[in-house]
Amino acid sequence: MRILAKDMKDAAQRGEKGVRVCGWVHRVRELGALSFVLLRDRSGIVQLVLNEKCAVALESVIAAEGEPALNEKAPGGAELRVAHLECISRAAADLPFQVNGDPAKTSLEAILDNRLLSLRNPKIRAIFKVQAAIVEAFSAHLRAQDFTEIKTSKLVAGSTEGGAELFHVEYFDKKVCLAQSPQFYKQTMVASGLERVFEVAPAYRAEKHDTPRHLNEYVSLDVEMAFIESERDLIELEKGILAHIFEEVNRKCAAELALWGAAAPTPESVERSPIVGYEEAVNIANEGAARTKGGRIFDLNPEAERHICEWAEKEHGSALAFVNEFPRRYRPFYTYPLDATRTMSFDALFRGLEITTGGRRQHDYAAFLETLPKFGLKAEDFEGGYLTLLKYGCPPHGGFAIGCERLTARILGLANVKEASLFPRDRKRISP
Amino acid sequence: MRILAKDMKDAAQRGEKGVRVCGWVHRVRELGALSFVLLRDRSGIVQLVLNEKCAVALESVIAAEGEPALNEKAPGGAELRVAHLECISRAAADLPFQVNGDPAKTSLEAILDNRLLSLRNPKIRAIFKVQAAIVEAFSAHLRAQDFTEIKTSKLVAGSTEGGAELFHVEYFDKKVCLAQSPQFYKQTMVASGLERVFEVAPAYRAEKHDTPRHLNEYVSLDVEMAFIESERDLIELEKGILAHIFEEVNRKCAAELALWGAAAPTPESVERSPIVGYEEAVNIANEGAARTKGGRIFDLNPEAERHICEWAEKEHGSALAFVNEFPRRYRPFYTYPLDATRTMSFDALFRGLEITTGGRRQHDYAAFLETLPKFGLKAEDFEGGYLTLLKYGCPPHGGFAIGCERLTARILGLANVKEASLFPRDRKRISP
Repeated sequence: MRILAKDMKDAAQRGEKGVRVCGWVHRVRELGALSFVLLRDRSGIVQLVLNEKCAVALESVIAAEGEPALNEKAPGGAELRVAHLECISRAAADLPFQVNGDPAKTSLEAILDNRLLSLRNPKIRAIFKVQAAIVEAFSAHLRAQDFTEIKTSKLVAGSTEGGAELFHVEYFDKKVCLAQSPQFYKQTMVASGLERVFEVAPAYRAEKHDTPRHLNEYVSLDVEMAFIESERDLIELEKGILAHIFEEVNRKCAAELALWGAAAPTPESVERSPIVGYEEAVNIANEGAARTKGGRIFDLNPEAERHICEWAEKEHGSALAFVNEFPRRYRPFYTYPLDATRTMSFDALFRGLEITTGGRRQHDYAAFLETLPKFGLKAEDFEGGYLTLLKYGCPPHGGFAIGCERLTARILGLANVKEASLFPRDRKRISP
Repeated sequence: MRILAKDMKDAAQRGEKGVRVCGWVHRVRELGALSFVLLRDRSGIVQLVLNEKCAVALESVIAAEGEPALNEKAPGGAELRVAHLECISRAAADLPFQVNGDPAKTSLEAILDNRLLSLRNPKIRAIFKVQAAIVEAFSAHLRAQDFTEIKTSKLVAGSTEGGAELFHVEYFDKKVCLAQSPQFYKQTMVASGLERVFEVAPAYRAEKHDTPRHLNEYVSLDVEMAFIESERDLIELEKGILAHIFEEVNRKCAAELALWGAAAPTPESVERSPIVGYEEAVNIANEGAARTKGGRIFDLNPEAERHICEWAEKEHGSALAFVNEFPRRYRPFYTYPLDATRTMSFDALFRGLEITTGGRRQHDYAAFLETLPKFGLKAEDFEGGYLTLLKYGCPPHGGFAIGCERLTARILGLANVKEASLFPRDRKRISP
């Protein structure tokens, strides 16, 4: 009967014999007539002691049977004294990527070029255990608040956000687009009477620039909710979601966080996170820029996001800050107005990076129609879409999306968001 | 403070005053000076009693305040005697789809043409509450067994299944494809050491035929697992997943199932479901065809799937049947052989429809290389892909995928799988 690496100490303490482990050869050290093999499985790493040379190459998949023994110096406090070793899948000796090395010593290009192997590295693999915990906690928190999970089409005729930055798909005899966001579908499902919906799904942006913040395909954690008053209801909801995610990541992924020397914020610090209006946020950013002798900041650019997060940490003890009341010109046409120039919208900034954009949406048919020409849009383009949605009874509502890779990257302190995507897509990279 | 429709009886029993409900005007009946309005919210339907005519059109969003009162004849056993009614969003009077009607009396075309409104129908909306419960139960069952959720790219350079039936995407200056399945990525993550992975994500098939079984975009519930002996380990895993899904759907979605006069199978019946070899399955299908005076069946076509499920129900008391050991020619090149002609593969059939295809995969590098020419494939096309994956230590493994819409449709007895997709995509339909 196979046991996992993490259970070796228990097995030794119970005095079990004839224990079997399976996994990958992570590291081998020869010492006289003995070999010490570190075996890696899904649970961690365990030491095998062999009375012979280890005849298989690193990364081979093996099964080993023997007797567990306590050993304080071994990882996990126990080792397996091997009586029988079987090679299940022999690895070639020309391993093109050092799986058991420190990824910090390898370039991101090399890590992504060798993705099939770099994902075996425990520190790199840990990123995706954390990401799985994020997705699980996001979904669990929303289900507990009566949100329904939806799955909407990623093939759309046009775009809600305008026509730029779209990937086109040859769909039989038509040309369609990959969805930039489930925006319209989320709103449809809110108006359908589900009231509260969420979706975890890929989203696509055909942005040409290659920055540490951008992916052309990313996982969007989307939320939409009826019967809100303003974006402040959404900020409260997001605080609850993030507090739960951080709590669960800290609880379930202690080992993974330790590999990165990282910790997620406490729920208390999320509670303390400030909400600042856009104008004030720009002022805060400029105070930060003045201190660091940066140039004048006119907009919430990446530098401004960093200054605002530093301010939130210093003044409020929070790694998270919300900026609301964005000017009309910075927000999509469907954003609900606060007054003549400002909107009921917000961004969430976390450890120097924008992780969320959201806001209340215009739900009033007449007001929606009035807004369109101001954005150079024509009503006929929204027939059967927004116009039908709003014409037959639509509650006040709004929502937001959290970029899953950005959140993962900022929790772990990754330098580039691509590190938080299993198989990142950028302008050059389409495989593996 | 707003309460939900489902909580009106509790509120009445507690003698609460000044209760507020919000929702959609589902139905209006005038009786003398009184109006009886059925209000629909995310929790269900509640009756409002007004001392005046209801001045708003069906589907308008309203808020009503008043006093709850027990009334055995009202839905849920209580009603709200309204003191104040506010129209939040007035619906136009020319509603193009009867939201409060019986969808069985409307064509599928009309339902899909009016999707933004047909999704408001309680019976139609119920489909997606069941689907959400399916996705939740699938994920929860696998997490409890140490599976890690993954999110892989849907933009791929080529296809693991051959070049046909692919949608092409204009990706900057390249042409890439929409993934038909996360097959290769699931295998990569198993070999990465995660060992057990699952994914819930869209999958794409550019099939031109329009049948009640097919969607061009569907939600694939994917599973992959290391250290299996044969497809029988996968069948056991799928039985456990389906038993849990059925149990959860029966437990959480009683009201939704009742609307469709449906019930999910019991866990005991899943346990009883038979596993039959391909040859035997074809014989069973032919016995069924003989009884119903059908023609001779040579392959597991849709008619055969129905006969096998009828047989499983009659002989084993199970709505579910597994067919394994498919001939080599019917399976992808990467399927693990059982002997010279058969493979370690299986299908799951449920209530007459194939809902799953799966099997053990070839994990041996040399055997994989030997197989390629037999399928007319060249090794160089797998450099950096399967060849790298298998060359550096890959455990025996396999997996399967459950079609989410097909499973939903068969649980509820829907005639067409499109009914189980929020925004189905077919050759003609790309919006909404």
